[in-house]
Amino acid sequence: MPEKSVPRARTAAADASGAAPDTAENAREGVSRRRLLGTAGATGLVLGAAGAAAGYASAPAAATPLTSLGADRAMFHGKHQPGITEGLQAKGHLVAFDLTPGAGRTQAASLLRRWSATAERLMAGEAADHDDTDVARDAGPSSLTVTFGFGHGFFSRTGLEKQRPASLDPLPDFSSDHLDRSRSDGDLWVQIGADDALVAFHALRAIQKDAGDAARIRWQMNGFNRSPGATAHPMTARNLMGQIDGTRNPKPSESDFDQRIFVPASGSSDPAWMANGSYAVVRRIRMLLDDWEKLSPGAQEAVIGRRKSDGAPLSGGTETTAMDLDKVDKNGDYVVPLTAHARITRPDRNGGAAMLRRPFSYHDGYEADGTPDAGLLFVCWQADPLRGFVTVQRKLDRGDALSKYIRHEASGLFAVPGGAAKGEYVGQRLLES
Amino acid sequence: MPEKSVPRARTAAADASGAAPDTAENAREGVSRRRLLGTAGATGLVLGAAGAAAGYASAPAAATPLTSLGADRAMFHGKHQPGITEGLQAKGHLVAFDLTPGAGRTQAASLLRRWSATAERLMAGEAADHDDTDVARDAGPSSLTVTFGFGHGFFSRTGLEKQRPASLDPLPDFSSDHLDRSRSDGDLWVQIGADDALVAFHALRAIQKDAGDAARIRWQMNGFNRSPGATAHPMTARNLMGQIDGTRNPKPSESDFDQRIFVPASGSSDPAWMANGSYAVVRRIRMLLDDWEKLSPGAQEAVIGRRKSDGAPLSGGTETTAMDLDKVDKNGDYVVPLTAHARITRPDRNGGAAMLRRPFSYHDGYEADGTPDAGLLFVCWQADPLRGFVTVQRKLDRGDALSKYIRHEASGLFAVPGGAAKGEYVGQRLLES
Repeated sequence: MPEKSVPRARTAAADASGAAPDTAENAREGVSRRRLLGTAGATGLVLGAAGAAAGYASAPAAATPLTSLGADRAMFHGKHQPGITEGLQAKGHLVAFDLTPGAGRTQAASLLRRWSATAERLMAGEAADHDDTDVARDAGPSSLTVTFGFGHGFFSRTGLEKQRPASLDPLPDFSSDHLDRSRSDGDLWVQIGADDALVAFHALRAIQKDAGDAARIRWQMNGFNRSPGATAHPMTARNLMGQIDGTRNPKPSESDFDQRIFVPASGSSDPAWMANGSYAVVRRIRMLLDDWEKLSPGAQEAVIGRRKSDGAPLSGGTETTAMDLDKVDKNGDYVVPLTAHARITRPDRNGGAAMLRRPFSYHDGYEADGTPDAGLLFVCWQADPLRGFVTVQRKLDRGDALSKYIRHEASGLFAVPGGAAKGEYVGQRLLES
Repeated sequence: MPEKSVPRARTAAADASGAAPDTAENAREGVSRRRLLGTAGATGLVLGAAGAAAGYASAPAAATPLTSLGADRAMFHGKHQPGITEGLQAKGHLVAFDLTPGAGRTQAASLLRRWSATAERLMAGEAADHDDTDVARDAGPSSLTVTFGFGHGFFSRTGLEKQRPASLDPLPDFSSDHLDRSRSDGDLWVQIGADDALVAFHALRAIQKDAGDAARIRWQMNGFNRSPGATAHPMTARNLMGQIDGTRNPKPSESDFDQRIFVPASGSSDPAWMANGSYAVVRRIRMLLDDWEKLSPGAQEAVIGRRKSDGAPLSGGTETTAMDLDKVDKNGDYVVPLTAHARITRPDRNGGAAMLRRPFSYHDGYEADGTPDAGLLFVCWQADPLRGFVTVQRKLDRGDALSKYIRHEASGLFAVPGGAAKGEYVGQRLLES
């Protein structure tokens, strides 16, 4: 059965045309890794292919629909690692590991080799190569991505201090920080995303099992986004404050996208092994929802600077209209308040700083007093954290109206190397340098 | 746009025929509450209807697909409450409330009135009638169900002891119990399920907000199942042990289904207000996955009595083949071991006891030692808990091979009244008796 490129929700217009968009076009929309295993018929049925591709023992004849939710597949091999430019996934696991005492460069290299092999198999909808738990059995790849990064401590533990990028220097303190160090940092970081919760959990356990004696879990967090197909609105994602989030994210179609998000292959001050890599800043941002929800919708919109309904700037237009920062109302007050979150974070007021935000919401139940432990697992990607996250966060620190309603509870900064070529494992250019 | 009945995954063959099954047929398959708002075209696009139905301010023209995942709608009004016979949903929240000191029957009645109004609106894809958080804005109903039950303590706190069903007498102790009382029981219980995580969270917060001063959260748990469309396999669900689970669930098409699951409208020893209601037993069952996964696939299959690959009994056939309990191997040993979980739980060896299991998996992260806090939020439904859950659990207590790999950590038993007629609220027949 021929593979067919399938755009994600944000580019469904191309899908509706019935034409298979060419790969370059697709790549600009950030969906080049997506492939549909099969062809959707009039009833939405996709037959056969996924069962065969799954690499499990042959299943009975399929009698139920495998939609693009299950059949969508991200590619493991590529210039960049998966899980950076792909659309948001319905389920996510973030997990950090510390190397165990005694484990060094050799053990780390062999761990990354195991992890890469597992990620490649699972992202193809196959079983792990040994001791598979069967939890994802029968399911399609479901857009699974597995992404690996290195934290500051990794380099000293492996004798690779000279290869440590300056960009991994610890982040400065911010006034909104209430950081739990036991849920921050880590030698190794893995981001798992998929549109099916069992597929994601299956990958998490496989990755943990692969760690064996070489590394142990330091912290682990679970998140989620909207399920594909739950909304017909052509918007960016909503967060648990009910706000549309990510409107001003740089787009892969913009000419300076790669330059802002990825370390160049040459001419950079980064070590050579980081070519085509990116830096991930991870923040567990608790939302103080009880306080937030006491605000009127108008007061909430003034905090953000955008309308809740459609994400349009308070200065008018639609979600994608440029914000008019100078517009005043009849009293001479700025329509977009000076402390509005969206005003402060506007990239063109931040020296061109840009980061690609790709978060998951989280909800870990309730505190004893009835307060929800919920918010955002903020993950952002950039070629340079000092020009991306740090620049923006410093500005927010000096007057963001949103800061009263959030609390940064954990933090991580990870060097995410470029994608592995066929036959290569992630991080090989570092570990075998 | 005409409504069209859409079977869930288990009945997709009927869907593929293109015919709209009649309602009685549908009801027998447990899908009568499902309705698709719109018509799926060849590309799976569903346009327009859901936005209009959502009750939010008009959204921009839809440019992305709202699939049946988002458009599927369960009905609030009916003979039974929703959330019992519907297919498993991708996301679930279980939450128990205790009435606050001073709150009695009057406050409880007005709480159930608020809750019912909110459930009806949200299940239709509408916003809450005041202070909506906008978290589900733009999304379709996504098969949302909200189900309400009463715990043992509710009746004394409201002066309704005489209306308390004998079936709410505390469950006996079982040897696998390691119960945390702070996460067990409760005056009121709400089960929320949906195929979209933000739709489910939105409902949870709305229900909490409605509680106001009348009740406070006692415990709350989050769960999940496979996303619709993630698998093409015509199977029952898999759990986090990788086993197919729920094969022997009673089917709505069976002649004694109603009698086993629902309290009859007359001729029962239950109080009249429980007509068409059901009893829910809720157990947080931790799976000791590290121990379980050390077993070989063959050893796991001997514990369960079924094949992992397809759920077929070890005595042969397919998932739905009746188990041959007498079959022996060449050594004269039973092919399905005497301690196998599926042998012990077979309904026809339990005096006809039957319960409808409708669980969610859960994963609440990791313990400090790297052990996953994961397992099953077991929810089962029956007309009589003594003949359903208690009968089966007592047998399991005396020799289930699975008991070494699980631990019951929390427990609840709730009387779930029948569905509300139009103009009525859930529990009205109790609270205004």
